[in-house]
Amino acid sequence: MTSIAYEQAPPLAVSQWLNARPELTLESLRGSIVVLHAFQMLCPGCVSHGIPQAKAIHAAFPPDKVRVIGLHSVFEHHAAMEPVSLKAFAHEYRLGFPIAIDQPSSDGPIPLTMQAYRLQGTPSLILIDRSGFIRLHHFGPLDDLRAGAAIGQLLAEGQG
Amino acid sequence: MTSIAYEQAPPLAVSQWLNARPELTLESLRGSIVVLHAFQMLCPGCVSHGIPQAKAIHAAFPPDKVRVIGLHSVFEHHAAMEPVSLKAFAHEYRLGFPIAIDQPSSDGPIPLTMQAYRLQGTPSLILIDRSGFIRLHHFGPLDDLRAGAAIGQLLAEGQG
Amino acid sequence: MTSIAYEQAPPLAVSQWLNARPELTLESLRGSIVVLHAFQMLCPGCVSHGIPQAKAIHAAFPPDKVRVIGLHSVFEHHAAMEPVSLKAFAHEYRLGFPIAIDQPSSDGPIPLTMQAYRLQGTPSLILIDRSGFIRLHHFGPLDDLRAGAAIGQLLAEGQG
Amino acid sequence: MTSIAYEQAPPLAVSQWLNARPELTLESLRGSIVVLHAFQMLCPGCVSHGIPQAKAIHAAFPPDKVRVIGLHSVFEHHAAMEPVSLKAFAHEYRLGFPIAIDQPSSDGPIPLTMQAYRLQGTPSLILIDRSGFIRLHHFGPLDDLRAGAAIGQLLAEGQG
Repeated sequence: MTSIAYEQAPPLAVSQWLNARPELTLESLRGSIVVLHAFQMLCPGCVSHGIPQAKAIHAAFPPDKVRVIGLHSVFEHHAAMEPVSLKAFAHEYRLGFPIAIDQPSSDGPIPLTMQAYRLQGTPSLILIDRSGFIRLHHFGPLDDLRAGAAIGQLLAEGQG
Repeated sequence: MTSIAYEQAPPLAVSQWLNARPELTLESLRGSIVVLHAFQMLCPGCVSHGIPQAKAIHAAFPPDKVRVIGLHSVFEHHAAMEPVSLKAFAHEYRLGFPIAIDQPSSDGPIPLTMQAYRLQGTPSLILIDRSGFIRLHHFGPLDDLRAGAAIGQLLAEGQG
Repeated sequence: MTSIAYEQAPPLAVSQWLNARPELTLESLRGSIVVLHAFQMLCPGCVSHGIPQAKAIHAAFPPDKVRVIGLHSVFEHHAAMEPVSLKAFAHEYRLGFPIAIDQPSSDGPIPLTMQAYRLQGTPSLILIDRSGFIRLHHFGPLDDLRAGAAIGQLLAEGQG
Repeated sequence: MTSIAYEQAPPLAVSQWLNARPELTLESLRGSIVVLHAFQMLCPGCVSHGIPQAKAIHAAFPPDKVRVIGLHSVFEHHAAMEPVSLKAFAHEYRLGFPIAIDQPSSDGPIPLTMQAYRLQGTPSLILIDRSGFIRLHHFGPLDDLRAGAAIGQLLAEGQG
């Protein structure tokens, strides 16, 4: 479920941001490691595993070095997970990191960022290095030890 | 947070049922123990504790002896937890027991069953005995050992 | 793995008691429900599941109604689990309930109480009712909900 | 509880090895990252947290890159944790990595490696880099995310 990629991260297609003012772009985050956590608010594996992991990453690393961004990529039950519901969810689960609502597609259920990143589903964890390259692309739960090791390796780069 | 009550359980005021055809009434369940689990789909303590407990109770006891009923009592973020969202939630979390959507009030945020039972919030666990009396009324997480013991005591009644 | 038995509980054959002065007998506990938790200190399932459950039962119920007794039934690695090791274990894991060291057999690895109760291994949970009858006999982990329900049923007996 | 050290790792003083034939020295492991997990078999925090973490590290990384070594540093209840008990423990808990029994001191309760590393207690996690320098020294539980990140940083060194 993990692929070690090495391609330039596509730009995020976002219909709305939560917890981000001004809005973010990946370009503006060059120089930081970006942890992109793709989820759906009604995906049980996201709620039990992916979101707690994203919160733990957000708490464990200095925010100027590691930026956590949630990506709400709704590809099923669209009417059930409108922005009004996501906002209540983010409030109740105390999500403090920026959340990008993935731009719906005009001709199918898969939103645009999900398409651009070829996500297989949620939860997905994507690590983008300081130069904007995708370095880890994982679908499904990834244990904290391996997630931490992948982040640690990116942190060490360019420090020698 | 637990009160040992001993009053007749008020009727459920329900705007819509999920997983129940025909619709249920507490009266029609006399003779069974009823486990009423009040929750909100975006309440983190319900998702992490109350709902898994309700599912475990549903799985552990014979359904003719112990009837589990979910009660979706929305008292905040109403627009975020409409029936369309609850249905997707119940599908994704594989809730197999009947769920009553608590009837909204026309003059305030607290729905009618929540008022009648004087619920303090969610999750709440209410045990109703075979004769329709409330025997346990607990707000907040209740550990499985104590919940099991309370159910076991009701199961033993009238078997001597 | 659970059998619903209904036989008189055999006496405990004990070489040494911990946390019990004066020493206990099942006879002297008639009138209380006895929760007999058989374990080995180096059995991983006992440490992760059985012992925490025994501690939780000890904490959840009034001690005059429900008496928790640990039974250290060593049937393998005998030299590794001598009383000196068990005492340190009981201290470090803060076991506050009485612990009976099962009497070694003179002609085989299985200690005497383990033989008398026909235990299949550890952890085992045995419930003895107020009259001294075995009412539940479970080998392996038993979830708290079912353990609680079994205790609750015994608690309700004779209260009508 | 964590200190970022940067000193040469002292040699291990070992009275006996488990799971290691021929015996190991830190010198012979130069070129690999060494994860030294100090524990006592009757320390509850070691059993619930430290040892599962050491096993997870052992499983997650290639053994030629990351070497996990258990260090059994008994500083209390000495008679309860003799080698015969430790061997049964290692068998029951399926510890597959080498375990060094810390050499007892002739004039006090603290064994020699524990003294040399100035360990404050168990569990302790020590990371030694490919050149034999201590890079992390942590007493108490360290979450998997941070442990993974520290290992990942050492893995990335010298790969640029």
